[in-house]
Amino acid sequence: MFNKFLERYGSHLEEEMQRTVSRYDNLPAAFATMIRYPMGWDDADGTPYPHPTGKRIRPVLLLLCAEAAGGHWKHALPAAAAVELLHNFSLVHDDIQDNSDTRHNRPTVWKVWGQPLAINAGDAMFALSYDALSRLQGTLDPATVLSIWNIYNETIVELTRGQYLDMQFETMMDITTDDYLSMIAGKTAALLAAACQMGALIGSGDAEKAAHFHTFGLNLGLAFQVRDDILGIWGQPDQTGKSAATDIISRKKSLPVLFGLSKSDDLRKIYEHPHTDNMEVQQAVGILDEVGAADFTRGLETSYYEHAQQAFAATGASGDAVDMLNQLVDALFGRSH
Amino acid sequence: MFNKFLERYGSHLEEEMQRTVSRYDNLPAAFATMIRYPMGWDDADGTPYPHPTGKRIRPVLLLLCAEAAGGHWKHALPAAAAVELLHNFSLVHDDIQDNSDTRHNRPTVWKVWGQPLAINAGDAMFALSYDALSRLQGTLDPATVLSIWNIYNETIVELTRGQYLDMQFETMMDITTDDYLSMIAGKTAALLAAACQMGALIGSGDAEKAAHFHTFGLNLGLAFQVRDDILGIWGQPDQTGKSAATDIISRKKSLPVLFGLSKSDDLRKIYEHPHTDNMEVQQAVGILDEVGAADFTRGLETSYYEHAQQAFAATGASGDAVDMLNQLVDALFGRSH
Repeated sequence: MFNKFLERYGSHLEEEMQRTVSRYDNLPAAFATMIRYPMGWDDADGTPYPHPTGKRIRPVLLLLCAEAAGGHWKHALPAAAAVELLHNFSLVHDDIQDNSDTRHNRPTVWKVWGQPLAINAGDAMFALSYDALSRLQGTLDPATVLSIWNIYNETIVELTRGQYLDMQFETMMDITTDDYLSMIAGKTAALLAAACQMGALIGSGDAEKAAHFHTFGLNLGLAFQVRDDILGIWGQPDQTGKSAATDIISRKKSLPVLFGLSKSDDLRKIYEHPHTDNMEVQQAVGILDEVGAADFTRGLETSYYEHAQQAFAATGASGDAVDMLNQLVDALFGRSH
Repeated sequence: MFNKFLERYGSHLEEEMQRTVSRYDNLPAAFATMIRYPMGWDDADGTPYPHPTGKRIRPVLLLLCAEAAGGHWKHALPAAAAVELLHNFSLVHDDIQDNSDTRHNRPTVWKVWGQPLAINAGDAMFALSYDALSRLQGTLDPATVLSIWNIYNETIVELTRGQYLDMQFETMMDITTDDYLSMIAGKTAALLAAACQMGALIGSGDAEKAAHFHTFGLNLGLAFQVRDDILGIWGQPDQTGKSAATDIISRKKSLPVLFGLSKSDDLRKIYEHPHTDNMEVQQAVGILDEVGAADFTRGLETSYYEHAQQAFAATGASGDAVDMLNQLVDALFGRSH
């Protein structure tokens, strides 16, 4: 499904990222493998892995925005490589923090090599991401490179703020929906926003235009996360219609749940139990429907989505990259073409 | 002892670092404390801590080199703040990796807040370090800022290489002295080298001069680590003269030990035991003396030290910062004035 977006840029993105790692040819092979493994280039034993892991959504978005803003995507490749390396660094550390065993149907880095080496491999990917970004010096004027560096620094601090809140919320019951939206703005939306903004700045050199792209990416990210939360309770709308409620079973404090907790003591009691049986899950979904959690959450998704569309219209973007961007957004939101 | 070097720069360094963190005023207070705590600004409960932790050697070295190269140290403050934030990021992650409970006589970050939050606090300090560095844009031309950014990226990848080797060596017996020297070049000397180089580049804008400062810092770092390894076996030369041998008791594979292991099967047998009693410790020190480990290690220390001095002479540095640099080096090497 997402392959067609990647195909637009051939193998250039993957090559740009691999070059970043390969430039450090003094890294011991076993250490390089810990970096190449989560990217989907190597297997854990250092042999080649058949295909990259992940959909590469952030770099594709960045390259499409560079084009849509009037530039050539090739000039934006270093930034595209940077955001994908950064995203994967954050996954390596997230998996340690969340104690997750698998990702992309493979053991996580810490599961293969242990936590100490996995923390360090993540740190190396973090530094390599900056190294990738710095290669913009080859295609851009110094002032624009420095502007992009500033955006990047602020984005990463924002990512760690979102990650902090996400971990903090696990042990808290009184989280407002505003707290939650602030968390996903950092954890999910900030990097998408930065990808769009950096792409546009590289493509146009126009900071005002790039700001509209930032608003587009931020609202797109928020809408996408809110939609994901809706699916976690009410399931895929195009499927059986039967509720999945997986987020209730895993006791995730997603947006509809937080809305429900603020409205219903009965839901609060269910969430305070250490385990939830099937009847309680049905009860919880019933409560969410009753208190208007679905309407609230769907209303927010629509609002963010429309804000994204408005911001995009304000960019004055043109060309066939715009069609591709629309298709990418539709694919993200599960709408077929 | 080291206070007099810090005094030269008043409170400017600490303020520069604190400003970097404070700029992100949307960070939750409890999260900011996790960053401010290891710097020695806050206690774990968020109340002010009486004095910064650590000697701030790297930023002082950077500022002195900026002066010695002919510049004004104030222009180098953003880079000085960056290297100290980076150093402390690496300590936060190191303490998790090494399972260390205390640092500077206080519980480590992970010990106070748990590993997941500590990993994230370290990541935030990593990003803030780049943010600090980017403020060079206020005092330097864009091309020089970009040169310094490149040095910084490469230095951090090198740090992770050294850290990887250090962790890897813990489980290995056959480490050559060359392997070990390559490890400390990354883990210890790379950031000292970069601090000297960046300071000189900011102070002079002269890449060739800055390269001599890099060589100075690298060899200084190597000499210092090798000296530390000597003290770990033979103790403080100005003390009782009685051997401390702490590194043998903790079974550290330091430079003299690795030299000994390559020369003596008897030492190898002692190191293969899970525990070492007092007689075995004396035996091990005896073997090290016998096979010439002390001469080998002291020879290397002298060689690195002399290389550092030669490189420094080649910089053509001048002014009273040179005296201060000499005093700092003497203080590092335990020579009194």
